[in-house]
Amino acid sequence: MAVSTPTDLSAYAESLGRNARRAGRSLATLSGQTRDAALLTMARRMRERSAEILRANAEDLAAARRNGLTDAMIDRLRLDEGRLDAMARAVEEVAAQPDPVGRTLSAYTRPNGLRVEKRRVPIGVVAIIYEARPNVTSDAAALCLKSGNAAILRGGRESIHSNLAIGQAVREALESCRIDPDAVQVVQTTDRELVPLLVKQEAYIDLVIPRGGEGLIRSVVAASSIPVLKHYTGNCHVYVHEKAAYEMAEKIVLNAKLQRPGVCNAAETILFDTAIADAFLPGICRKLIEGGCEIRGCDRTRERLPQAKPAAEQDWYAEYLDRIVAVRVVDGLEQAIDHINTYGSHHTDAIVTNDLQAAERFVTAVDSSSVMVNCSTRLSDGGVYGLGAEIGISTDKLHARGPMGAEDLTTYKYIVSGPGLIRT
Amino acid sequence: MAVSTPTDLSAYAESLGRNARRAGRSLATLSGQTRDAALLTMARRMRERSAEILRANAEDLAAARRNGLTDAMIDRLRLDEGRLDAMARAVEEVAAQPDPVGRTLSAYTRPNGLRVEKRRVPIGVVAIIYEARPNVTSDAAALCLKSGNAAILRGGRESIHSNLAIGQAVREALESCRIDPDAVQVVQTTDRELVPLLVKQEAYIDLVIPRGGEGLIRSVVAASSIPVLKHYTGNCHVYVHEKAAYEMAEKIVLNAKLQRPGVCNAAETILFDTAIADAFLPGICRKLIEGGCEIRGCDRTRERLPQAKPAAEQDWYAEYLDRIVAVRVVDGLEQAIDHINTYGSHHTDAIVTNDLQAAERFVTAVDSSSVMVNCSTRLSDGGVYGLGAEIGISTDKLHARGPMGAEDLTTYKYIVSGPGLIRT
Repeated sequence: MAVSTPTDLSAYAESLGRNARRAGRSLATLSGQTRDAALLTMARRMRERSAEILRANAEDLAAARRNGLTDAMIDRLRLDEGRLDAMARAVEEVAAQPDPVGRTLSAYTRPNGLRVEKRRVPIGVVAIIYEARPNVTSDAAALCLKSGNAAILRGGRESIHSNLAIGQAVREALESCRIDPDAVQVVQTTDRELVPLLVKQEAYIDLVIPRGGEGLIRSVVAASSIPVLKHYTGNCHVYVHEKAAYEMAEKIVLNAKLQRPGVCNAAETILFDTAIADAFLPGICRKLIEGGCEIRGCDRTRERLPQAKPAAEQDWYAEYLDRIVAVRVVDGLEQAIDHINTYGSHHTDAIVTNDLQAAERFVTAVDSSSVMVNCSTRLSDGGVYGLGAEIGISTDKLHARGPMGAEDLTTYKYIVSGPGLIRT
Repeated sequence: MAVSTPTDLSAYAESLGRNARRAGRSLATLSGQTRDAALLTMARRMRERSAEILRANAEDLAAARRNGLTDAMIDRLRLDEGRLDAMARAVEEVAAQPDPVGRTLSAYTRPNGLRVEKRRVPIGVVAIIYEARPNVTSDAAALCLKSGNAAILRGGRESIHSNLAIGQAVREALESCRIDPDAVQVVQTTDRELVPLLVKQEAYIDLVIPRGGEGLIRSVVAASSIPVLKHYTGNCHVYVHEKAAYEMAEKIVLNAKLQRPGVCNAAETILFDTAIADAFLPGICRKLIEGGCEIRGCDRTRERLPQAKPAAEQDWYAEYLDRIVAVRVVDGLEQAIDHINTYGSHHTDAIVTNDLQAAERFVTAVDSSSVMVNCSTRLSDGGVYGLGAEIGISTDKLHARGPMGAEDLTTYKYIVSGPGLIRT
């Protein structure tokens, strides 16, 4: 697939929207069986087209090397037979999930005989704006198709050839299933000016999902006249309560901070209850330091751990995404809750305790999308929660909160009937 | 209550937000029993304070007369013992509804032993920006309190004294129940400059609901950095299918158009199937004309009804909110669906038919929040649907669609536990 640059970006953005709306209207009337058959065809076609997809990926890799991308970025971009097969398998797993569309959420007859049904339906058209990894193209296409939505996929410039080749395989699969191939459109141009034009097509697009760094998300939010589901990174906490067991606290803190520090559900601040600070803080913090972590502590932390650097106010807000951790000693449960609600990002926060009442108070009072008792914040994940493939972790409170699966790409409609009933 | 003008509007907007956030955090941990008791106290206090509230209302009425408001507007503004009692009863009815908060939406244990619960919780802080009618103050306060949300209520300048007096009664009720009285704050100033400042307090406010005309809603959407649930008016349709019975079609069309033309769920366009146009159109349209309606028709309508004015393209988009109706003859079900999806506002659309397959196709393919079979669009209403008191009819697809009750003012959180479980 050649990368083309449309001469009129504005007209191109509108045509993407218009085509998606048309395709979305027809998708919304297909059965779940038909959508699942299309997903299986899509997976098969991705395998059949593997040579073309890997050739396109090689073009992206060559460009990435020319442009001096880091090894880590090049590795994220790279496809091979194994990775492509994993992508096809992910599509098959989406097909095997229960149908998120068509379910009756409630149904009842009113005293006047009016029959009211609230039924899950697709949202319509979803635009997804993402960065380097080409597997997002097939994942997002599959989740949108599963939920009966038309998708407009705008990936990063680094993976444009890979994305277009995957898009071509998807298109062929849709055509062979007699589905409007514009149900999944991969944007043909890498021109950055397209994004602000695309996110203003509110007549045609119902939802925008940016996936990537905070800069990408903020720029999409600023430009969009369409609702945006935001996936900001997380400032996650582990609070070690006075009734915590040392072993469990150490295990959870180390996992939450160190298992993969660069992701949104890694812990950024550890709160130690003053009652166990002498007994727990030095030992656990030394293990963190052994794991390569820099400690930034409050005064009471530094009394117990002289090698800790002093924490400034902004450290409590920080999302390091790195081997740095803020540590504070708090005067009990309520101060821990206040700290988390004040400085946190409402993503995922955990308490370690054997006290049931403290656990209940914590999960009720902490205003976060995932509140955890005695487990690692790293478990906050759609796959771990059993939601199937994940379209992201929403840091919004409206519509969808926390890990988002195919069902979160649906809305509902009221279907109302009652022979000859009128308003009196 | 005196109307005050804070010297620093920006600081006032922030203090409204900060106080609401604090009160909302504590509301979120109260039991449903406590919230219902507060609602009953609020209703009682509104009755006890009726003299003060009516005195304040008299001030508003005097100002309205001085400012030359229309009789209709003055009537909407006016309170008396009967109306005040109806407002208190509406609060009691909200108290009697099931608790929308705390319900377990799903709960399961994953193969690794992780326990996952998805539980309904309040959104947090809701700001409602509305126009003249003072009953919105107590309705909105009650729905927010029921759902565990702190409310910031900014009513119209015409009803400011009434709103403040109702707000004072609510505040006293909250205090006597030992609930943070800032859980319901009525904005003290009528300065229009406050609104754009208020809807930028995204650190403190989670949701903005404008209730009123399209101009109000558009200005709030343009200024807000917080998600807005929009309640635009409706361009509703009745489609008379070829298998419709004449009597039922006439009854539904007349009710949908004429029972109350000025509201969002009144019909604006009637579509007649070409197969029954000769038999149905002239008779039904003559009844509409007898009801005071102006007809704007397509060419095929005017062939059958010479007195109809010609409809222009913009008539298909129009929300007249008046005794005017657009009439078109369509070539069957698919053209009717296309017309509604193209020109409609996705609010409420009805088919009149005895053909079950046509009805199924219509409700599946029409992309509207309420799709109706053989009943009047005027029935699209939270009360009629049995949702209890209504905070509005959402024309959005995300979060809440169609009539919104207390449950639509909630979100959910994941509560996750599993002794010592970590990510491997």
